[in-house]
Amino acid sequence: MKEITVVQYLINALKAINIHHVFGVPGDFAFPINDAICEDDNIEWIGSSNELNASYAADGYARIHGVAALSTTYGPGELSALCGVAGAYSAHLPVIFITGMPSEKVMASHALIHHTLGDGQFGTFAKMADNVVEASTILTVDNAEKEINRLIQLALSAKRPVYIALPEDVALSILPAPQEFNFTFEPQTGSDDVIQLAELIAYKINNATQPLIMIGEHLRVCHAQKQALRLLEKANLPFSTMFADKALLDETHPNFIGLCDGKVINKHINDYVESSDFILNLGALFTDFNTGAFTIQWPEDIVNIYQDKININKRQHPPVNFCRLLETLTPLIHPRTNTYNCYMGYSHLEPAANTENNHNDLITAHSLYPRLETFFKEDDQVIAETGTISMGLGLARLPKGARFENQTLWGSIGWATPAAFGAAIANPSCRTVLLTGEGSHQLTVQELGQFHRFGLKPIVIVLNNNGYLIERILCKDPMINYNDLCQWNYSQLPQAFGAKDWLSMKVTTNAELDHALELASTATTGVYIEVVTAMMETAALAANLASQLNPQRGLQVHVPPVQEKEFA
Amino acid sequence: MKEITVVQYLINALKAINIHHVFGVPGDFAFPINDAICEDDNIEWIGSSNELNASYAADGYARIHGVAALSTTYGPGELSALCGVAGAYSAHLPVIFITGMPSEKVMASHALIHHTLGDGQFGTFAKMADNVVEASTILTVDNAEKEINRLIQLALSAKRPVYIALPEDVALSILPAPQEFNFTFEPQTGSDDVIQLAELIAYKINNATQPLIMIGEHLRVCHAQKQALRLLEKANLPFSTMFADKALLDETHPNFIGLCDGKVINKHINDYVESSDFILNLGALFTDFNTGAFTIQWPEDIVNIYQDKININKRQHPPVNFCRLLETLTPLIHPRTNTYNCYMGYSHLEPAANTENNHNDLITAHSLYPRLETFFKEDDQVIAETGTISMGLGLARLPKGARFENQTLWGSIGWATPAAFGAAIANPSCRTVLLTGEGSHQLTVQELGQFHRFGLKPIVIVLNNNGYLIERILCKDPMINYNDLCQWNYSQLPQAFGAKDWLSMKVTTNAELDHALELASTATTGVYIEVVTAMMETAALAANLASQLNPQRGLQVHVPPVQEKEFA
Repeated sequence: MKEITVVQYLINALKAINIHHVFGVPGDFAFPINDAICEDDNIEWIGSSNELNASYAADGYARIHGVAALSTTYGPGELSALCGVAGAYSAHLPVIFITGMPSEKVMASHALIHHTLGDGQFGTFAKMADNVVEASTILTVDNAEKEINRLIQLALSAKRPVYIALPEDVALSILPAPQEFNFTFEPQTGSDDVIQLAELIAYKINNATQPLIMIGEHLRVCHAQKQALRLLEKANLPFSTMFADKALLDETHPNFIGLCDGKVINKHINDYVESSDFILNLGALFTDFNTGAFTIQWPEDIVNIYQDKININKRQHPPVNFCRLLETLTPLIHPRTNTYNCYMGYSHLEPAANTENNHNDLITAHSLYPRLETFFKEDDQVIAETGTISMGLGLARLPKGARFENQTLWGSIGWATPAAFGAAIANPSCRTVLLTGEGSHQLTVQELGQFHRFGLKPIVIVLNNNGYLIERILCKDPMINYNDLCQWNYSQLPQAFGAKDWLSMKVTTNAELDHALELASTATTGVYIEVVTAMMETAALAANLASQLNPQRGLQVHVPPVQEKEFA
Repeated sequence: MKEITVVQYLINALKAINIHHVFGVPGDFAFPINDAICEDDNIEWIGSSNELNASYAADGYARIHGVAALSTTYGPGELSALCGVAGAYSAHLPVIFITGMPSEKVMASHALIHHTLGDGQFGTFAKMADNVVEASTILTVDNAEKEINRLIQLALSAKRPVYIALPEDVALSILPAPQEFNFTFEPQTGSDDVIQLAELIAYKINNATQPLIMIGEHLRVCHAQKQALRLLEKANLPFSTMFADKALLDETHPNFIGLCDGKVINKHINDYVESSDFILNLGALFTDFNTGAFTIQWPEDIVNIYQDKININKRQHPPVNFCRLLETLTPLIHPRTNTYNCYMGYSHLEPAANTENNHNDLITAHSLYPRLETFFKEDDQVIAETGTISMGLGLARLPKGARFENQTLWGSIGWATPAAFGAAIANPSCRTVLLTGEGSHQLTVQELGQFHRFGLKPIVIVLNNNGYLIERILCKDPMINYNDLCQWNYSQLPQAFGAKDWLSMKVTTNAELDHALELASTATTGVYIEVVTAMMETAALAANLASQLNPQRGLQVHVPPVQEKEFA
């Protein structure tokens, strides 16, 4: 490579790993970074309304595109993004977080300048960020080439955010003759020797009466979804997912037995999981909201494969290459002749859900979620906010190729609105469907305008149930006033945020909802639907989870009965 | 005190220091805190749209009320508030930052629960917060009483935020017989022996030909404004302020010579400062934006009094009690017989500014700021966002009792909108005037709805100049696209955010602006005025500061000429 400035080298590194959009908010200490991005024809600056929104947008983009970049200025800018960066960390998303910094000269002088705490110290914010990233660095002219390569490779290998702080003067300094890039998307692994492990797992599966595969997010982290699918199909094994991993593999697949969320929902599926005599868990995390608040009684014989470790019946081992393991394992399994039944989908719970409700009746949880399930199309990018609305869709069976992105572990409300924007930027050719409660929507609502600004046409469905419903069902008094919200006129928001031509509707009856969804299906613009329900309308999964977490509350909500058919 | 839960004790401590509002966003790990606040008739929960906004609102409240409280949940909630807490730190505002935490039992189990990074660690976020507060603590039943008292007292003494994390189960545990509270608002000082110092300063002032007092934020920090005013009046000394400290003392006072911002504006005043042979600086910080980018040539003989230190001609000494020092000093000064002239106010710069512009002309910087100056009333709470709009008002002379709050040091754009809400909650009897550029407004705009929700009637003036103007004048190419914004219909926002009865206007000509300000003066509802100007309309102070910081840019903006009258 010929001589080049440090910041140009950094931007080239981003392009070398296929990043062509940078989310962020500009600022004076970051001008060299902002300039370099805007002056380069092959990478686009995506200005966000604020830094938190930018960080969520980068998260959404990384989910779809595999990797993302985020840029803020020093101090206020970077601190405002930390929550979103932590969310990306918890979800194993490689986000390259680049922040501007005052010049080395200014920092050495300990000057009292803006965007500081007034203490003449300049390392504080990098130290803070270091807690929520895989690695952090402050670039100098001497370390720039090495550190840029090291950190970006770490982000790709560990599938985590990294933090790169770039002082103004360092950014514009020259690297005389930097090396060509040599990044790999291969995940970090301890060992390539997968034969012994594959043989052990094959032995366990081949000798099990009812083996089961769990599908989890580390499959995506390690780009091993295809290999997992091949294993399932060649060996004809059944698989289940938990909530965070919903739709990671096709939910219409004949080997899919349905979503397991412990004892709080889908009892048949939980029974199947618990009665399996061997489970191969391909990267699912046993978190509280994944396991119906720890209500799954896992079989004793279980092997967990993660990107960074392996557990064989609770003993921990170093990780191996996930893809290679699955490829080695597949031919060792004796194919089964079973057929599998799946009881997922609202039609399995209540076959008549769509017609049972009178069209002029108010929308209920019972009438809403089956309709949303029917509304989804193949290859939809569904971005579902933390809260009752995503839980209501836990039971929905998604069409082939549809993705269901949520933030089950970090659970930061507000994430979904900007994350949907980031997802839409990453893949504008698929339909992006944002599903959010109105309480969560309020945190980051200003990112709505961005869709229109960048020519994107999402379908935004905002559930207005007059407060934080997930909290009403979890706290000791549902009517306590901290769960109340400022009352907005949601359907006026797209227009106010500049999306003049969007179709914006407010619906309160089933007939209105049906009509709105029909219009949305054929719309050639962005669509915003405010769905109004009574305050306590709660889907079964959320209601049951709340009862599990808070049994003394004795929650009284309408829960659709689960069919008591025998599981095949 | 009789037996009481830990969280009740904490809430009682807040009330004991005169806190009756808590800003925040509720969340499941914080329910015991949220419950305790809502169940207490003497403290009110002020639910914010998001945590960053809550932290800015607490900042605004603390500026008016002297102290504030902020509450978030664990993880995402607290991280989202860090930027605002850091801002309060930089401005010496005692904000009690209380965050919920999982129970000790859950933390000890290292469970994989929501709102964590998934690593089973629970101390990470407290460690991060510790960097931007005076002190932090994680409460246990054993340390709760001692730590609550220690941290709240530290906040009051050091005038800084403190961070208190409260695990769910600890919150509901019983303190058998806690002591009564014994808080003091007296600032921390090293020594009460002020006589020697007072005599030294008196000697310097009495022997100076042209002594000058600088007024700064540590006066407010130490509640010493009254004592400073008495000194100025008894001794008949002149005083000046810098930008961050604008209107800390009455700008109509006969001893006020005007705002000093170095060589970038008010040349007469800078000359006066530089030609003074002794300066007593009562708590002003010599930051970049306070000093016109370090362009003030301070006299050699200068004594700086701060809350936490004293500098006598650059040698540092331990702090003393600020009030007592001023009280001791006042009688030692020989009163002068001088009269002082002040060249502050747009009428001094351009006497005909208000009439020179044709009423049907488009609004310019030249026509806007003099009109805003005239619009202000006595006792207004003016909350001015970082950026060109606050700089445009640097030259305005504010009426008696008016406050001008800005965030010069931390300079986090977006601060002003929620800070104005916090200020209005703290003192609803004064008129709150929010002045913000549209770029900054976008970051935190959703807090607009809160004013109406809580029955407050601010005047909101949003300067829409089609982008980040402060950045256009500071960066290398004003037209580079990172300074562009999503185009909103600003005047539709109040209605969309639920403020149905607000007067909302969009003005582009001077006549429209005059009419809107007239309506605002007599309105009985909240008022929202979108003021549209051409893209590069910049006030003199901002333009000159940009030229100073970036001389090679050769900024071409219209700068009103400064009168060349002789300074008395």
